[in-house]
Amino acid sequence: MNALQSSRRTKPPEAAVASLLDTLLKRFGNQVATSEAVREQHGHTLTWTKNQPPDAVVYPRTTEEVSDIVKLCLKHDVPVIPFGTGTSLEGHVNAPYGGVCVDMSLMKRIIVVHDEDLDCVVEAGVTRKELNEHLRDKGLFFPIDPGADASIGGMVATRASGTNAVRYGTMKDAVLSLTVVMPDGEIVKTASRAKKSSAGYDLTRLFVGSEGTLGIITEITLKLHGIPEAISAGICPFPSVKAACDAVIMTIQSGIPVARIELLDELQVRAVNAHAKLTLPESPLLLLEFHGSEAGVKEQAERFGEIATEFSGGPFEWATKPEERSRLWQARHDAYWAARGLRPGAQSVATDVCVPISRLAECVDETKRDIVESGLIAPIVGHVGDGNFHVQPLVNMDDPAEVAACEAFVDRLVRRALAMEGTCTGEHGVGQKKMKYLEIEHGPAALALMRTLKQAVDPSNILNPGKIIAF
Amino acid sequence: MNALQSSRRTKPPEAAVASLLDTLLKRFGNQVATSEAVREQHGHTLTWTKNQPPDAVVYPRTTEEVSDIVKLCLKHDVPVIPFGTGTSLEGHVNAPYGGVCVDMSLMKRIIVVHDEDLDCVVEAGVTRKELNEHLRDKGLFFPIDPGADASIGGMVATRASGTNAVRYGTMKDAVLSLTVVMPDGEIVKTASRAKKSSAGYDLTRLFVGSEGTLGIITEITLKLHGIPEAISAGICPFPSVKAACDAVIMTIQSGIPVARIELLDELQVRAVNAHAKLTLPESPLLLLEFHGSEAGVKEQAERFGEIATEFSGGPFEWATKPEERSRLWQARHDAYWAARGLRPGAQSVATDVCVPISRLAECVDETKRDIVESGLIAPIVGHVGDGNFHVQPLVNMDDPAEVAACEAFVDRLVRRALAMEGTCTGEHGVGQKKMKYLEIEHGPAALALMRTLKQAVDPSNILNPGKIIAF
Repeated sequence: MNALQSSRRTKPPEAAVASLLDTLLKRFGNQVATSEAVREQHGHTLTWTKNQPPDAVVYPRTTEEVSDIVKLCLKHDVPVIPFGTGTSLEGHVNAPYGGVCVDMSLMKRIIVVHDEDLDCVVEAGVTRKELNEHLRDKGLFFPIDPGADASIGGMVATRASGTNAVRYGTMKDAVLSLTVVMPDGEIVKTASRAKKSSAGYDLTRLFVGSEGTLGIITEITLKLHGIPEAISAGICPFPSVKAACDAVIMTIQSGIPVARIELLDELQVRAVNAHAKLTLPESPLLLLEFHGSEAGVKEQAERFGEIATEFSGGPFEWATKPEERSRLWQARHDAYWAARGLRPGAQSVATDVCVPISRLAECVDETKRDIVESGLIAPIVGHVGDGNFHVQPLVNMDDPAEVAACEAFVDRLVRRALAMEGTCTGEHGVGQKKMKYLEIEHGPAALALMRTLKQAVDPSNILNPGKIIAF
Repeated sequence: MNALQSSRRTKPPEAAVASLLDTLLKRFGNQVATSEAVREQHGHTLTWTKNQPPDAVVYPRTTEEVSDIVKLCLKHDVPVIPFGTGTSLEGHVNAPYGGVCVDMSLMKRIIVVHDEDLDCVVEAGVTRKELNEHLRDKGLFFPIDPGADASIGGMVATRASGTNAVRYGTMKDAVLSLTVVMPDGEIVKTASRAKKSSAGYDLTRLFVGSEGTLGIITEITLKLHGIPEAISAGICPFPSVKAACDAVIMTIQSGIPVARIELLDELQVRAVNAHAKLTLPESPLLLLEFHGSEAGVKEQAERFGEIATEFSGGPFEWATKPEERSRLWQARHDAYWAARGLRPGAQSVATDVCVPISRLAECVDETKRDIVESGLIAPIVGHVGDGNFHVQPLVNMDDPAEVAACEAFVDRLVRRALAMEGTCTGEHGVGQKKMKYLEIEHGPAALALMRTLKQAVDPSNILNPGKIIAF
């Protein structure tokens, strides 16, 4: 078969889909759903990206069942779209060519926790909150926290990161090994449980961030961390977004091991106050968290306080009680929903970029000006310790001029970040909406290499077609 | 062209090599060397693996020159073997099918250091010591330290790690982006300079650890760290290797952020004392280093001291002066040469494995017994905070029985580590000598995937053939 030709994907013939569904129903019975409501829930639902539902949804219980589904789909040349919790933001779970959605939500076993090795093995459908609930009594936690209570499998597939990444890294760093069902149904284990290895190509990282286009992740061996002896959180207002960013830059450069350092602009603070009934000061705000020993946390906080003062920030206020801390971070995590409350009825556009930290203040500042000049309502939040920030325009989709203005704004935002040696997406992923920026970011030779990988691993282009690489 | 067929590599016809060398000499003049001495220096030289010299050595000065060399070699269907400093241990730089060695030692520019972003861009021939020399005045350092003063390009290619990996990670974690010459001469930039990204497949990690079989790394963007405010080092003897390993396990589990925690067994200590004229206690020994604030370092050391006592270790002695500290770590780095001094005239066999830390004491203990039972002289050193350790048998190559005993011992060592959910190599890489273990470690489906990647990226099997994947 010629990979280049066969990879040109179109909607499969209706008869092929009907024949496949018939076979799936016989094999999987009530693990298959075809109602319109369920199918629509399994297309994209969270942002302005159009909903493109699959032809059916199947809920496997084991890696072997996933393998069987994929083999059947390959035989019928029908696309397969893996699905975690559907909280991705760039159209990752849409089915532009129809096909079968593989919903991993029944694969929820926490297979084993190796306390002594600080790792665990989980099935892909376990969510990060479920895992942390399970781990709490053991004094361990899994730090990666993208906000949504995403599935671990989905987090691997999108290379998720979030608020703790500045200290604990992203999913790229959190995964020791994966079990993956390949496009032909073969089952691959990517690595051993050793903390490091140089035994051949890094298959683990091949799948982290591949968005379901190279294989379906069914089991994950994750690195864990001990719950720190001391945790303290605080908020610090600043006179401007630029001052806050400059304080962040100095904090990172000084090597203070902040666990979280998050920016909310004044509009986002207002939204959070309204949504969570808080009384945070409505100016650009940093939310911080420090992890360590009692003495270590105190020292970190004091050093940050000095830096904040240097950039006219403050007062730096502490949330020492766990309940207070939880409430603060819950408010941060609900930023997406809080922002939607700023303009009821409007559609939310979520986008993110990431730049080298030396360019962060400049990039956020220019973006703020652009928002004003574009006449958009668009709060900013960011994992600014990594140079990563989100803009969430709220758009009246019935106003074509506003939609166009927002599209142009997102385009300028991405190009601004790329011009500053940044990336078109720090953590949301490519999905459908960022595909057009990959060649600008990586250049034609690198994009050709990505295409070579996709074609070699999935020559029939059966896995999540129409995402990352277009052909 | 059929990738499977064309990838079966044999020595190219002499006429092809002669024609290529003629062209290279015209194009690169005195940047080409063909003397036997130079060619032998560019085959494997450090361990019992046989020396297989290339047909010629070329010293490019730019990425474009590397691209030109590769294009010429591809045109003549002659292998290309990238070469850093030749300090790899498993036959990585050998030329089993002849070919052209591309020695990167003239590509030594430190292109830019971004102080504010804690990163830098270097050419592949820069060594880690040269880089750290350059960085010192800026208060920055590059932590990855495999012992040898390896080139940064070689360290990327072999996924090097070493003494600081327990705190700072391995080359997998240290690289932001790479410039790579592909097997057809195309030049790929793998990523932007953003600290994190989810913009498509992880091309950077595809090349980290690929041992020159997928592309030739010419430029590297590296993460840097601020030199810690305080550094302290110490040594702690233990009554047995098991007691030392148990103390390591407890230290890691307690979340003490040790920068280095290295094991030397009593034989290795004796070798180091003789080589470096030191008077370290000749029992199993941990060498430690702590990085942080003055208070933080003190706290870490005290907590470690308590753990050591719990496992009958001690006294825990400090090397507070920088000179003393340097001398200690120099002695550790010279462990390889020190060990060779234990049996002058014998050949050194260097091998490494890595296991989950819960199995470390057991694995080292069984290995010690095996060494005794095999009648070998074989000191052990290890980056034990990661569960990684090295065994260095010293073998009389004129005694076939001893050579066979050593081969059988290494085989048992690897299988022991694999049975404990470990890896056949923690940091030395696959090269020629560990190829046979990849299928046992990864299984046939994962190995088939590695082969698919190699064939897709290098269909002519021109880049470092006969390493990692055999076909």
